[in-house]
Amino acid sequence: MKTNPGNYFEDFRVGQKLTHATPRTLNHGDVALYQALYGSRFALQSSDVFAQAVGLPKSPLDDLLVFHTVFGKSVPDISLNAVANLGYAEGRFLKPVYPGETLSAHSEVIGLKENSNKQTGVVYVRTHGLNAKDEQVLSYVRWVMVRKRNADAAVPAAVVPKLAESVAPQDLHVPPHLNFDTLFDTALSGSKHRWDDYTAGEKIDHVDGITVEEAEHMMATRLYQNTARVHFNQFSEGKGRFGRRLIYGGHVISLARAISFNGLANAQMIVGINGGRHVNPLFAGGTVFAWSQVLDKQPVAHRKDAGLLRLRLVATKDLPCGEFPDKDDKGAYPENVILDFDYWAVMPRA
Amino acid sequence: MKTNPGNYFEDFRVGQKLTHATPRTLNHGDVALYQALYGSRFALQSSDVFAQAVGLPKSPLDDLLVFHTVFGKSVPDISLNAVANLGYAEGRFLKPVYPGETLSAHSEVIGLKENSNKQTGVVYVRTHGLNAKDEQVLSYVRWVMVRKRNADAAVPAAVVPKLAESVAPQDLHVPPHLNFDTLFDTALSGSKHRWDDYTAGEKIDHVDGITVEEAEHMMATRLYQNTARVHFNQFSEGKGRFGRRLIYGGHVISLARAISFNGLANAQMIVGINGGRHVNPLFAGGTVFAWSQVLDKQPVAHRKDAGLLRLRLVATKDLPCGEFPDKDDKGAYPENVILDFDYWAVMPRA
Amino acid sequence: MKTNPGNYFEDFRVGQKLTHATPRTLNHGDVALYQALYGSRFALQSSDVFAQAVGLPKSPLDDLLVFHTVFGKSVPDISLNAVANLGYAEGRFLKPVYPGETLSAHSEVIGLKENSNKQTGVVYVRTHGLNAKDEQVLSYVRWVMVRKRNADAAVPAAVVPKLAESVAPQDLHVPPHLNFDTLFDTALSGSKHRWDDYTAGEKIDHVDGITVEEAEHMMATRLYQNTARVHFNQFSEGKGRFGRRLIYGGHVISLARAISFNGLANAQMIVGINGGRHVNPLFAGGTVFAWSQVLDKQPVAHRKDAGLLRLRLVATKDLPCGEFPDKDDKGAYPENVILDFDYWAVMPRA
Repeated sequence: MKTNPGNYFEDFRVGQKLTHATPRTLNHGDVALYQALYGSRFALQSSDVFAQAVGLPKSPLDDLLVFHTVFGKSVPDISLNAVANLGYAEGRFLKPVYPGETLSAHSEVIGLKENSNKQTGVVYVRTHGLNAKDEQVLSYVRWVMVRKRNADAAVPAAVVPKLAESVAPQDLHVPPHLNFDTLFDTALSGSKHRWDDYTAGEKIDHVDGITVEEAEHMMATRLYQNTARVHFNQFSEGKGRFGRRLIYGGHVISLARAISFNGLANAQMIVGINGGRHVNPLFAGGTVFAWSQVLDKQPVAHRKDAGLLRLRLVATKDLPCGEFPDKDDKGAYPENVILDFDYWAVMPRA
Repeated sequence: MKTNPGNYFEDFRVGQKLTHATPRTLNHGDVALYQALYGSRFALQSSDVFAQAVGLPKSPLDDLLVFHTVFGKSVPDISLNAVANLGYAEGRFLKPVYPGETLSAHSEVIGLKENSNKQTGVVYVRTHGLNAKDEQVLSYVRWVMVRKRNADAAVPAAVVPKLAESVAPQDLHVPPHLNFDTLFDTALSGSKHRWDDYTAGEKIDHVDGITVEEAEHMMATRLYQNTARVHFNQFSEGKGRFGRRLIYGGHVISLARAISFNGLANAQMIVGINGGRHVNPLFAGGTVFAWSQVLDKQPVAHRKDAGLLRLRLVATKDLPCGEFPDKDDKGAYPENVILDFDYWAVMPRA
Repeated sequence: MKTNPGNYFEDFRVGQKLTHATPRTLNHGDVALYQALYGSRFALQSSDVFAQAVGLPKSPLDDLLVFHTVFGKSVPDISLNAVANLGYAEGRFLKPVYPGETLSAHSEVIGLKENSNKQTGVVYVRTHGLNAKDEQVLSYVRWVMVRKRNADAAVPAAVVPKLAESVAPQDLHVPPHLNFDTLFDTALSGSKHRWDDYTAGEKIDHVDGITVEEAEHMMATRLYQNTARVHFNQFSEGKGRFGRRLIYGGHVISLARAISFNGLANAQMIVGINGGRHVNPLFAGGTVFAWSQVLDKQPVAHRKDAGLLRLRLVATKDLPCGEFPDKDDKGAYPENVILDFDYWAVMPRA
């Protein structure tokens, strides 16, 4: 068969390495589409001049554009037969990526656990994104529930990797040439609030809401060359479990991050992904809102210009976030909460 | 509070200067998105080779892309709490902007007038767009009706600036290296009609109509980093005065300008904005048509290759323009007329 | 009249040459939009690094982006008053086009045949796309049914050009620097199946389906500066023969080609178009599927690294292609089949 049927749960082995197809040169067009799709306003990714003032050669690509591109590459090999994308961990952005650079990706299977129904199993992979010099620009773990081709197929003994609850600050990469010292202009960045102004535990309602259209999420997901079928095919999804096309979870992360500008304008770069769950699906026509909570604050070793904020970013659909809608004591999420994302950002200090 | 609540009427003072956030590098991606959103066909902005034939180093960005970008920057400071954008005046494009250039913007409050209901007031600002050398590329006045936070708040005495009815030809900037002399190829520009062929008073029906989709106007408005809430949030707008998302007025200007190619193909650049009013709202699903009237013709001082046309560009929704729908004797517009825009364009002479 | 009414059937003469307006510089933004609109994953057009590994200076533009751009230029002169685009033949891609290059186009009328109803006639044109050095990058014939302005208008005697049933392999242009020899990496290209693995007669169901939205096809068609009215104006089309906007046939070709990656990932470039018919219309909301059949296999003269596949690409709407839906014995197509396209692709050999 010449078409790719994707891997089923029983096709995976712990230790297996997968080289993902279609390397991708990201360029100014991808930057503009990302802008048009999410409306992000972080100054570092928006202005070459601002980027140069803080020590970079020019504006780097949005970290999440890099993430989605690498993620998309892994779909045909990892999650073509997935039921659900369950979580992320140990994500680190290791090097800024600039327009004109080419990304490729490979993954290693680090865990496998069949579900008790024997219809599906959980596949844990560590995925690496590389630039043209084969330098790692991104590394993260995700786990995904994948169908078995055959419920009777024998599978290896379960291996569940031990994953860090969060990325340790010393393992995060803050670009060495980035310098928020004296030239960081808060009039241009859009907020006077620096790292010092945030407190662990603090919650921020990002106020704004953005309604999502079918054309938008499909254009985004194709931009990332993500081929998961549930996003594109109304003919088959109309007969499926939701009756609708499901929006790529990464689209929600990018929307929520863009919305979080209003309250976190100086959270200039994402440097780590501690975890993330798509706790409910989003469909076109839904309006996305977001709120954040500061989970932790850490200095950057040997630097006084920049600090690290660990942030929890919660997105909802059709529910403003003034009351910070959240999971209950048992960990169950209201149906309007769609994302619970935990990341490290780097921010200028006073 | 870390989120931006925007300024209310009583927060403004005449003479106040506002530096707007998020400088923005515009590049080839923005050019292509602008193309995909409006379908403009003016040769100068479309072809580097054509631009070089008439003396420019390469295709400049569409003047309205520059306008929307600068306008968008001013929204968080000027019009986040606006009820309506009332008008434009004294707009001048002072220098072509090329892909790769970074724009920033600042504004000065030049007038304030509380409305008699004390709920709102009119704010007049002069906004400047600058390139990375801090050279002005665009300057214009707009006035906008802004809510008061508190109807009882004291406000200063009214100051209403005296604004020019139109920009004087000698104040317009025609790029000095632009040369329409012998190398202007009308087979490539799409029309044989030059400046000499137009007559003051002449009306042109631009014939074509373009239907607008939600995804399109939201992508455009995010491309301009314009954060006005009414454009994006169906959840809240669905309960609002129109029950729908309102389309950014500048989207209509760009659509009407693109449609005007058919009849004004040689109106190569917009060099001045004399005035403009969004006289009725546009919503997704509406089809935009346009007609133009030549208001004035002026030579360019010391030049025989180029002339100036003062044009009135009227856009409608769901109403073809063969009968030139217009305001009545009392100045009231039919509900299908959505834009009345007055600008100067530069055109080749015979 | 200053607006372009387009040519009617009686305005054309065999031998007539038409220079099309609006040369167009294609750049990285066009590449990204093409990506976002179709989701293509062919490695050669996706990665500069991959392109360099096989001998090209960088990723060329997708062949179909070049085709649509050239086609779009011809619309205002050839098909503004068209009833239907009837077919293509003798298409050859003669030189890769890279971001930053400027395309222009001209056409020659090579045939005319009035229909018996005297209301319309068929116009045959050969259209050439050129780069800034006036080198041909693309040449093809299309024929289109065009309205008469006046049924009584006299027309010349019918001339029907003799068109090749397919482009002869020796007339196809495979870029001389393209080298699939040792460095073609099938892990990156997405498939191990090379030219040698395909057999004449073989059919491939490409499995995936993509639903099309109004915003997408209009953005695509404007990107190509194609002004055919039926694609954009719901106000008038709502009263027309379909009650809806008709999707540009080229949008279907690009979708089907992108879908065909799954099964033909190594069909790296389109080098010839033997024929093509849009056998039924597509409207927004329809889901496009595709299947291919290998019609012929030919070597490339003097080369062992690459071979030619002649492929038939059939697209459907709302009909998966597992059973290869096709025309019947009388040549009539089921209503769900929308495209029958015949092209030559170049592929690596083992």
